[in-house]
Amino acid sequence: MKQSLAVDGRRLWRSLMDLARIGATDKGGNCRLALTRLDGQGRDLVVGWMKEAGLDVTVDQVGNIFGRRAGRRNELPPIVTGSHSDTQPTGGKFDGCYGVMAGLEVMRTLRERGIETEAPLELAIWTNEEGSRFVPVMMGSGVFAGKFPLETALEARDADGISVRSELQAIGYAGGAPVGGRPLGAYFEAHIEQGPILENEDKVIGVVTGSLGLRWYDLTVTGMEAHAGPTPMALRQDALFAGTFLMQEVIHIANAHQPHGRGTVGVVRVHPGSRNVIPGAVTFTVDLRHQDDAELSAMDARLRAACLEVERSHRVKVELKDVQYFEPTPFDPALVGMVREHARAAGLPAMDIVTGAGHDAVYIAAVAPTAMIFVPCKDGISHNEIEDARPEHLEAGCNVLLAAILQAAAGTRTGVNA
Amino acid sequence: MKQSLAVDGRRLWRSLMDLARIGATDKGGNCRLALTRLDGQGRDLVVGWMKEAGLDVTVDQVGNIFGRRAGRRNELPPIVTGSHSDTQPTGGKFDGCYGVMAGLEVMRTLRERGIETEAPLELAIWTNEEGSRFVPVMMGSGVFAGKFPLETALEARDADGISVRSELQAIGYAGGAPVGGRPLGAYFEAHIEQGPILENEDKVIGVVTGSLGLRWYDLTVTGMEAHAGPTPMALRQDALFAGTFLMQEVIHIANAHQPHGRGTVGVVRVHPGSRNVIPGAVTFTVDLRHQDDAELSAMDARLRAACLEVERSHRVKVELKDVQYFEPTPFDPALVGMVREHARAAGLPAMDIVTGAGHDAVYIAAVAPTAMIFVPCKDGISHNEIEDARPEHLEAGCNVLLAAILQAAAGTRTGVNA
Repeated sequence: MKQSLAVDGRRLWRSLMDLARIGATDKGGNCRLALTRLDGQGRDLVVGWMKEAGLDVTVDQVGNIFGRRAGRRNELPPIVTGSHSDTQPTGGKFDGCYGVMAGLEVMRTLRERGIETEAPLELAIWTNEEGSRFVPVMMGSGVFAGKFPLETALEARDADGISVRSELQAIGYAGGAPVGGRPLGAYFEAHIEQGPILENEDKVIGVVTGSLGLRWYDLTVTGMEAHAGPTPMALRQDALFAGTFLMQEVIHIANAHQPHGRGTVGVVRVHPGSRNVIPGAVTFTVDLRHQDDAELSAMDARLRAACLEVERSHRVKVELKDVQYFEPTPFDPALVGMVREHARAAGLPAMDIVTGAGHDAVYIAAVAPTAMIFVPCKDGISHNEIEDARPEHLEAGCNVLLAAILQAAAGTRTGVNA
Repeated sequence: MKQSLAVDGRRLWRSLMDLARIGATDKGGNCRLALTRLDGQGRDLVVGWMKEAGLDVTVDQVGNIFGRRAGRRNELPPIVTGSHSDTQPTGGKFDGCYGVMAGLEVMRTLRERGIETEAPLELAIWTNEEGSRFVPVMMGSGVFAGKFPLETALEARDADGISVRSELQAIGYAGGAPVGGRPLGAYFEAHIEQGPILENEDKVIGVVTGSLGLRWYDLTVTGMEAHAGPTPMALRQDALFAGTFLMQEVIHIANAHQPHGRGTVGVVRVHPGSRNVIPGAVTFTVDLRHQDDAELSAMDARLRAACLEVERSHRVKVELKDVQYFEPTPFDPALVGMVREHARAAGLPAMDIVTGAGHDAVYIAAVAPTAMIFVPCKDGISHNEIEDARPEHLEAGCNVLLAAILQAAAGTRTGVNA
């Protein structure tokens, strides 16, 4: 009986490929930057599909789109699924789009089978998740979750000075509905992993238990610039040499907090940056992550101690500037349990996983019980035109999403074949 | 009697300060880029002084200026001293100019005292030593020494496409004399040290025994770029992390070849250079120097071995590209001995030293017996508007130059008071 209720994987794939034609790039990727005409065309296509699937579409004031499917008891808060349809400038076909298309496929399947749920369902498309054109990133879900004001989002401007407000009007998605302020019964988001773990572990489903907390810093080491030739080694105050020990320490710190610790130095600027001049200063970024806030604090403390130690031992000045902090976000144990259980029931190789990347779900978790479902992406590569995923994995994730939504929408009842 | 033949330190300082008014910068430095109108004005001022000092001025085809003072035996090859009067864009008042003004002060002193030498003397101003506007650097002396053709120099163009040939004409220094091809009896160059050794050792005179050999490389480490959040530490191929071990090895190699080894990483480029992306590639410059070519080769070999080792142990690709090689240049032992002896005779604290920076003297050493005299500069700082030197040190160096020139010009006779 369980086999009889399943999504149409080929339809899901076809819709993904149809959407990917809008803003297609030469290398097989997608460029639909948030609120551009191409993003508008993508939204129009999906909204048309939503309506064909019988959904009642509304748009809120930050351009988030909700396609609602009535339940038997419409006074219940809706069970919501979705993601985003904007992309990176050289993005792939699956990041975000998969979550939207998987939700649509669930809605299509329920309609075909004539299945009614207790609670109403909604398919959400969140505005500007990528943040490539407008910051803040995860804009639509951020306003929805009260992380920053609507006005901040509407007044955000791109590099050409064009505002979110005017672009929402230009592409016809300046909606009238208030943003957020209403209860959601649950929020599920299906997504490609954007990392290599599932593929490496040979799993099909990642049961996402929460998101890593994050601390960003700018670290500056100041020594004394001098000529590379005339200055003897013993008299140098080489900012870069001192800095390399801190760059390595970032990695050592993360390695000491496994399996969930992450440490990355992604940007390095050397001053004055001349082949025959000993660096007088080096500035680099530090990105530390952990799912446990106490561990993240311990990582922070060790980094600070290392800065003092390098300052003492290398005759340089070290300045550590805090840039950003996101606390770790655990997802809802009951919803996470549903994802885990339905993957198991379907016989799919699954594992618990933590998301290291930001997602709309991470913001929504602040205002609604939330869970995510990951499927593998090829070589863990994302934010890249060569981003790829296997149709059978996308289908499997979509079936888990369907089952979890039905369980959540049914309230306490666990039978999925209503 | 020795005290009676000495340069006028105040006149030397005043001429340095007068020259520094042309192209003076707000922070007390100089900007007279090679062959600009300001460089032309500086040349005009010094040529005027040369003529006042009784020198016969000629200009060669690459704009090198020679002010000749006849000797008793004009068939002898001339004893030459000099340096350059162009500066870095944010240069100081002493780099180059000191060597020219010290030579001029020697000529002025000899004229005042009515001293005649056996061999003729010449004061040289070499074109475009700095190379800030036109490359190759040390252009005038390089052509003179046959290091590259005249045509290469004349066709060199600045960032605006303007050639050396046209700028020489514009400022009136496109001379007619052939470049080089004539013997020099000796070449002396006085210069600020541009490093911290003399100051650190509390010495006034650096007896320069030669120049360091140099090897320049571009080193590229290639890993795999990936998201900083989703990618576990164990699955990373972090090009920067691997690269830091090679950056440190450059320093370790130099430290293992003291006192004359130098190792510097001056430029670092990280790809893609995003805060939350693990570096997929890092390219950095390597500068290795040593006065002994066998030692420099050993340093080179150790760097190559380290590249292989990092490639093996870090799952990255390492590519080491040779960019430049200058062999170590020992100066002429007899002339170096004269400098050492006259510093000692004058009771000046002196030490042997090797130049790590390039100088016109390093090229001239290929075609003439050559020596250099260093004096301290404040905090070892040069190529900087705050470059500074003490009048009494400049005077002391100039007196050593005078004595060495007289000895060289007198042939075998060592009495300086003719």
